[in-house]
Amino acid sequence: MKLNHVIESQQFKVPRIMDLFDRANFMKKVVARGGSLDYHSKIMASLYYAPATRTRFSFEAAMMRLGGHVLSTEQAQEFSSAIEGERLEDTIRIVGNYCDVIVLRHSEEGGAKRAAKVSSVPIINAGDGSGGQHPTQALLDLYTIHNECHTIDGLSVAFIGALDNGRTARSLAYLLSKFERIKIYFIAPDEMQMKPDILEHLDEHNINYELANSTEGILENIDVLYMTRIDRERLVSKKINLDTYNIDKNVLRKLKKDAIILHPLPRSIEIAPEVDKDPRAAYFRQAQNGLYVRMALLSMLFDDE
Amino acid sequence: MKLNHVIESQQFKVPRIMDLFDRANFMKKVVARGGSLDYHSKIMASLYYAPATRTRFSFEAAMMRLGGHVLSTEQAQEFSSAIEGERLEDTIRIVGNYCDVIVLRHSEEGGAKRAAKVSSVPIINAGDGSGGQHPTQALLDLYTIHNECHTIDGLSVAFIGALDNGRTARSLAYLLSKFERIKIYFIAPDEMQMKPDILEHLDEHNINYELANSTEGILENIDVLYMTRIDRERLVSKKINLDTYNIDKNVLRKLKKDAIILHPLPRSIEIAPEVDKDPRAAYFRQAQNGLYVRMALLSMLFDDE
Amino acid sequence: MKLNHVIESQQFKVPRIMDLFDRANFMKKVVARGGSLDYHSKIMASLYYAPATRTRFSFEAAMMRLGGHVLSTEQAQEFSSAIEGERLEDTIRIVGNYCDVIVLRHSEEGGAKRAAKVSSVPIINAGDGSGGQHPTQALLDLYTIHNECHTIDGLSVAFIGALDNGRTARSLAYLLSKFERIKIYFIAPDEMQMKPDILEHLDEHNINYELANSTEGILENIDVLYMTRIDRERLVSKKINLDTYNIDKNVLRKLKKDAIILHPLPRSIEIAPEVDKDPRAAYFRQAQNGLYVRMALLSMLFDDE
Repeated sequence: MKLNHVIESQQFKVPRIMDLFDRANFMKKVVARGGSLDYHSKIMASLYYAPATRTRFSFEAAMMRLGGHVLSTEQAQEFSSAIEGERLEDTIRIVGNYCDVIVLRHSEEGGAKRAAKVSSVPIINAGDGSGGQHPTQALLDLYTIHNECHTIDGLSVAFIGALDNGRTARSLAYLLSKFERIKIYFIAPDEMQMKPDILEHLDEHNINYELANSTEGILENIDVLYMTRIDRERLVSKKINLDTYNIDKNVLRKLKKDAIILHPLPRSIEIAPEVDKDPRAAYFRQAQNGLYVRMALLSMLFDDE
Repeated sequence: MKLNHVIESQQFKVPRIMDLFDRANFMKKVVARGGSLDYHSKIMASLYYAPATRTRFSFEAAMMRLGGHVLSTEQAQEFSSAIEGERLEDTIRIVGNYCDVIVLRHSEEGGAKRAAKVSSVPIINAGDGSGGQHPTQALLDLYTIHNECHTIDGLSVAFIGALDNGRTARSLAYLLSKFERIKIYFIAPDEMQMKPDILEHLDEHNINYELANSTEGILENIDVLYMTRIDRERLVSKKINLDTYNIDKNVLRKLKKDAIILHPLPRSIEIAPEVDKDPRAAYFRQAQNGLYVRMALLSMLFDDE
Repeated sequence: MKLNHVIESQQFKVPRIMDLFDRANFMKKVVARGGSLDYHSKIMASLYYAPATRTRFSFEAAMMRLGGHVLSTEQAQEFSSAIEGERLEDTIRIVGNYCDVIVLRHSEEGGAKRAAKVSSVPIINAGDGSGGQHPTQALLDLYTIHNECHTIDGLSVAFIGALDNGRTARSLAYLLSKFERIKIYFIAPDEMQMKPDILEHLDEHNINYELANSTEGILENIDVLYMTRIDRERLVSKKINLDTYNIDKNVLRKLKKDAIILHPLPRSIEIAPEVDKDPRAAYFRQAQNGLYVRMALLSMLFDDE
């Protein structure tokens, strides 16, 4: 079936995911030999209702490496703030005239879905609201796991951080639920624990998971440690020990020799700089993979036309 | 004669307008077959003293569909605010070194004219001040009328809204005055009626026009209904009935079967969403035409060099 | 030796400078014949922690004239402000995945050096802090002097303005110290005089220089008058006569017939508009040279890979 809009990670089935990863491997080779591809007549519009420069650059570089062009704004809120009642739907209808794909970072959950309903060109959700999704991040996370661990089935994955508003952890959990013999640990203070909708989804897919307040007894068993941002202020206000959800040399000592550490970046205080030199620290490789996965995804959208 | 700067709509004579529309038709075909043109070495600079993302995207997409490159800023006011006494003229002289054409949205009436005086490359006025002009909008409006009604001569056109600071209505009125047997209705509250300079211009060109406070008795007679934004606050503060200058199903019923509804967009409350599905609602096609007309205009500037 | 990062002007030796100028002359010819070069697969990232649109456009146009692509943000401070503890080093590591060269305007002195330490791609310093450097400005200044005066050795150069926080004057002074029989005048109020680190550097390189509070007796002897911005407020608050550090017709009368006037632009009140028409006013030609020198520099970085 034709790939059209990219709205939420659960829309991807395993064969499509594996196709995408094959394409991403090809894109990696194209970039390595300093090449670019032949999508010269294609235009991508970057619509960011709030700045998210890393994600934006990753998408825009992907489009440029494909040979295409980019329309870009970090001030898309101007579309709506200046005019009373101006609607996202109108903006999408207009911008769709000027491009072949729209990458949308919207401030409200469900923004991408609303956009897709009226759009004449594919919409890629680049994050919608703090409780929404960020499916391309989840795809690049999974691609990194696949590349580094050479499998996805059978892995144990721990998510650490403020998981209640962790868009990336939510999106990746959906994707993991499509694979076999996965074990997931959600490690967070109770008040920041993963929300019930995801847990119910995992139950429905018979995914084995555990909730925990600390990494004790877990670090030794996992293959993937997925760190997410945690706000110092929020921890302090709840009188929670800052060290519980951070990683440093001591954590590294307990971690399996072939485990990997991921982080969607930017990080705050949750990963000490001393961790960067450890070969298991995969988060900068993960950021790099964003380029290949987004090139693959964009090319899929264009080729399927 | 060489087309150089594009400052105000009255500078265009009918034969040039028809040339431009022929080119725009050609551009429409180029875009439809997913092509791009061969202006690879050309650079357009987008200088916006205030964000106007729809207009900016329309111009930038036009440049990219031509194969060219775009320098872009939505913060051109930074050129002048940071430095005491920094002048628009200096900015234009400098930026002219870096590009082949400058698209300027300036905050003051006459800004584009001042820029054109010192510029080494063509200036395109993309709006200067609320009482200024927006000639490329008028050209795409007229192109849409020509495309949809298959003629311009002999048409009846009604403008509705806050016409006193309606840059687009002003610019289109100038263009219409170049054609034969035109009838224009200006429908607005007295305090927001079209300004005398335009009315005098129409008198000089023997254009038949009427001023009115409501659409009563007019809707049945017109070929083009040109809606412009009207500020709810402003109406409320004057105790004017909001419905008088809005259109909805009831208005549609009175409108001729082959009339068209235009709006420069973004709209506020003046067109109900229910109108969108009516085939006479031409405003999204109008936005799309912006791409073709701007491609045509840019290519004219480059080819004439 | 391979050219890698471009951090400070003193890193350039005379043979490299002359190579660069030859390349810039070639680039000037490419642009004059409306051509572009074959760096289609290259991407430059523009990271501006504060807007500096002229400099940004100059670099981005250079990249586009080379045929390459540009990722751009004027809001790079968003990288660090939103996230507690997000570090420049992380940003550079991530952005380096998406491009072939990073042009960095940072707010702190030493920012470019810090970036270069961790970057996987070349860093070009486009200004770091008010007491930092702006080496590509100095290179284009020197290129302009070389083009206009046909030599650098033996020239007398006067710098006028608030030299204590004049990044461009500092960077150019470093470059001049590499040439023979140079004489430099620093003309500023005592409290805004050139800082001791530059004077010591000139002493070490046996460069003849003088400090002065006015242009009296100097104008008649110099080949290059390098004006820099001077803040009216700052002069007024110190009760300094505004005219002492400005140039107008009276100054022009005293200046040698073949002297040239430079200014990094934008200017404030220090050069009267009447000066622009004088053939010795070289500051707009200087801005244009920025394009050629930056094209030359970027191509050097790419070719040396």
